[in-house]
Amino acid sequence: MITPVLLAGGSGTRLWPLSRRSYPKQFSELAGTRSLFQATAERLSGEGFAAPVVLTQAAFRFIAAEQLSALGVDPAAVILEPGPRNTAPAILAAALWCAQTSPDALMLVAPSDHLIADAQAFRDAVVAAVPAARAGKIVTFGIAPDRAETGYGYLELGEGDTADGAPRALKAFIEKPGPEAAARMAQSGRHLWNAGIFLFTAPTIRAAFEAHAGALLDPVSAALAKARQDLGFLRLDPEAWSRAEDVSIDYAVMEKARNLVAMPFSGGWSDLGDWEGVRRSVPGTGDGVALSGPATAIECRDSLLRSEDPRLELVGLGLEGIIAVAMPDAVLVADKSRAQEVRRAVSALRARNAAQATDFPRDHRPWGWFERLALGERFQVKRIVVKPGAALSLQSHHHRAEHWIVVQGTAQVTIGEATRLVTENESVYIPIGARHRMENPGKLPMVLIEVQTGGYLGEDDITRYEDVYLREAGE
Amino acid sequence: MITPVLLAGGSGTRLWPLSRRSYPKQFSELAGTRSLFQATAERLSGEGFAAPVVLTQAAFRFIAAEQLSALGVDPAAVILEPGPRNTAPAILAAALWCAQTSPDALMLVAPSDHLIADAQAFRDAVVAAVPAARAGKIVTFGIAPDRAETGYGYLELGEGDTADGAPRALKAFIEKPGPEAAARMAQSGRHLWNAGIFLFTAPTIRAAFEAHAGALLDPVSAALAKARQDLGFLRLDPEAWSRAEDVSIDYAVMEKARNLVAMPFSGGWSDLGDWEGVRRSVPGTGDGVALSGPATAIECRDSLLRSEDPRLELVGLGLEGIIAVAMPDAVLVADKSRAQEVRRAVSALRARNAAQATDFPRDHRPWGWFERLALGERFQVKRIVVKPGAALSLQSHHHRAEHWIVVQGTAQVTIGEATRLVTENESVYIPIGARHRMENPGKLPMVLIEVQTGGYLGEDDITRYEDVYLREAGE
Repeated sequence: MITPVLLAGGSGTRLWPLSRRSYPKQFSELAGTRSLFQATAERLSGEGFAAPVVLTQAAFRFIAAEQLSALGVDPAAVILEPGPRNTAPAILAAALWCAQTSPDALMLVAPSDHLIADAQAFRDAVVAAVPAARAGKIVTFGIAPDRAETGYGYLELGEGDTADGAPRALKAFIEKPGPEAAARMAQSGRHLWNAGIFLFTAPTIRAAFEAHAGALLDPVSAALAKARQDLGFLRLDPEAWSRAEDVSIDYAVMEKARNLVAMPFSGGWSDLGDWEGVRRSVPGTGDGVALSGPATAIECRDSLLRSEDPRLELVGLGLEGIIAVAMPDAVLVADKSRAQEVRRAVSALRARNAAQATDFPRDHRPWGWFERLALGERFQVKRIVVKPGAALSLQSHHHRAEHWIVVQGTAQVTIGEATRLVTENESVYIPIGARHRMENPGKLPMVLIEVQTGGYLGEDDITRYEDVYLREAGE
Repeated sequence: MITPVLLAGGSGTRLWPLSRRSYPKQFSELAGTRSLFQATAERLSGEGFAAPVVLTQAAFRFIAAEQLSALGVDPAAVILEPGPRNTAPAILAAALWCAQTSPDALMLVAPSDHLIADAQAFRDAVVAAVPAARAGKIVTFGIAPDRAETGYGYLELGEGDTADGAPRALKAFIEKPGPEAAARMAQSGRHLWNAGIFLFTAPTIRAAFEAHAGALLDPVSAALAKARQDLGFLRLDPEAWSRAEDVSIDYAVMEKARNLVAMPFSGGWSDLGDWEGVRRSVPGTGDGVALSGPATAIECRDSLLRSEDPRLELVGLGLEGIIAVAMPDAVLVADKSRAQEVRRAVSALRARNAAQATDFPRDHRPWGWFERLALGERFQVKRIVVKPGAALSLQSHHHRAEHWIVVQGTAQVTIGEATRLVTENESVYIPIGARHRMENPGKLPMVLIEVQTGGYLGEDDITRYEDVYLREAGE
């Protein structure tokens, strides 16, 4: 059995405005009707695969859990990294965790924000690589290049062995090249793109860390040993974790280890690393135009037009090499040659304190999600969706009153000592200061419209008395 | 005294998505904090100017009236054209109306959707042209070209008279030229752009119509004679009006009349005929980038970036010659060389029955306006703003119940036989079928959030019992 280890802690900004710190790329439906994280979990499930281990940030724990639950996947563990430390500490933590349950566990480590069109071809490559991993090799997966890409690292294959469908000797890791080197490698037949996907046993990778990055073992072991169970999540110890070096697995281990082999595979891989990568990943119409959502292209070429909202019409007219991504609160229009620089848009907005730099319009919570519909001088309107069986915390507010109108499903509402059911087309009023709670006792999502009135409407005007999700202040 | 005649009936689509059939360009705050219509009315007010005569469509009557009222301008008449017939019938109707009140009225006819940066320079030119108009001339205003524009018609001046600041002889009207002719005329010193602004007396223009477009006199006279007063508006007779030819004033009269003179003026005129014109009208920053609203340009050139909503961030990155206009329900991204083709975007949306082709997100009504905040399976949320002293019709709905929460000001609400005041942070419920009315008895705008629930939520589920605005079915 292979244990998938899904790396889901990133919060990149190159796919802004769709990817934001509060709801990054791997959880978005960037391609198809499932998130990239869900697609990755699904790709690594079925015969031969054990339950996955997920590594992510505390801020994303309920999103990850909910997305797995929607797939019917029950993870072996959801390990929470107290802070970003890049891939090496995360992979070591996963290896130590796996070794606890099964000393010679076979681990398939994969980013959860990549696209692989042909899942079966990928699984076949994984299965073909198992003997090498069992024999103590670190197997790294590589993609035969079809263009002179300067945005990826490369794997240089050794000479000699050419057996099809089996791992090959690896001569060197090559960092992101310049255009000339990229052109040469794209033609050589001996270079693959480094997909950042690995297969190895827990003892093999532990030995590699001991040999090449020994300083990580102490802090990461301690972070795991002192980890705290929080509902279904495993929170690594923040103090120990903070002592681990912030370093990538390539730099810490892969570029130094001698027991690596490369497993080539093809099947439509993309890291969707920027919007130009997303454009290229969409099956072509001949003119290079990729559309998504209610988007219309009139005489456009080599352009990406994405509307991320069913009620937002995006029209491109006479565009060439333009990326346009529209959301109701933020729109990006960029020349496609600048796709790698989209984080500059985020920096510019952050400098102006614009919430759009970091906050996704839908605010995902353990009980469901909400979004702001309107904000006025002394009022705010929200749409709130509560999952079946979920409950908001018992809370009160100092500065606002709330009107709730249930428009779908049934709410169980507590105000002070009284609890009652509120059904579709009924409303309740929560006075300033009243202790209240909203639950969804039903089997379907409950939707309500909340109208807040008051002199201060910030999310931080909340006093929590009970919370089934054990959230801390500020969460 | 000069009577301004403001032509405000157009509903062009070249400035989509800001300009839409339900709320066209002249009423938008395209430049500055006043609409172009308001700026035009203001430019033609003060010493020497009488109250304006406005020509517009019935659909825009309350918008026009409200925008004038906000300026403190009380129009002499708001004449409603029953259907679009281009400028000639509209100007003739205005001339006949003016002659009724003052037989030798001096009329300044102007489109209401142009931009003139220097209003005083324009008024000076008008005053300087009065003697010629009094002497029986048709004075047409022209702008010295500063580029080889192919989007405007030209006025060719006669040779000889060169007195500065006085009208000059006109040799010919020239239709929109090709690039070569435009380049020649831009250099000649004897050509002006035709601004479509005219000064003449009512008898002069009537005589010109009799001489060159006599067939218009009978239907337009009849449309005015049988016009119907409707609150403060004058509705021309639809049957008579439908018999008037659809023809421009240039074609019907100006290209044929021999008593024309041209009055040159400069002062920053633009017809804002397309987004490229809008871009050019914004004072340059050197890089040709024009920004409006929360828009950010990063290394862009010769581009227009407009966000039409204070909560919608628009970011341009590395753009050259791109027009991007963002609204919460529609976004246009176009190459600036295609600015004249924006109507194709509207056609494409209309073909898909997208409301954004024609409907502005804020729906303006005589009592104020509303906008949809959310639309669900069986519910809808609206923000409704009612002007001080205004009242919605007494009405009922067959298929929906409504919850109203007042968030600003005070509403007087009638449900069945009962009337009560509802103040900020109070709510009321309107059951299906109940007769109800909402009024704003206060001195400030009243804002309420309406949550509708029901199986059918169309605007046409309304039975009106009383309406102070005398609206007809479907209005």
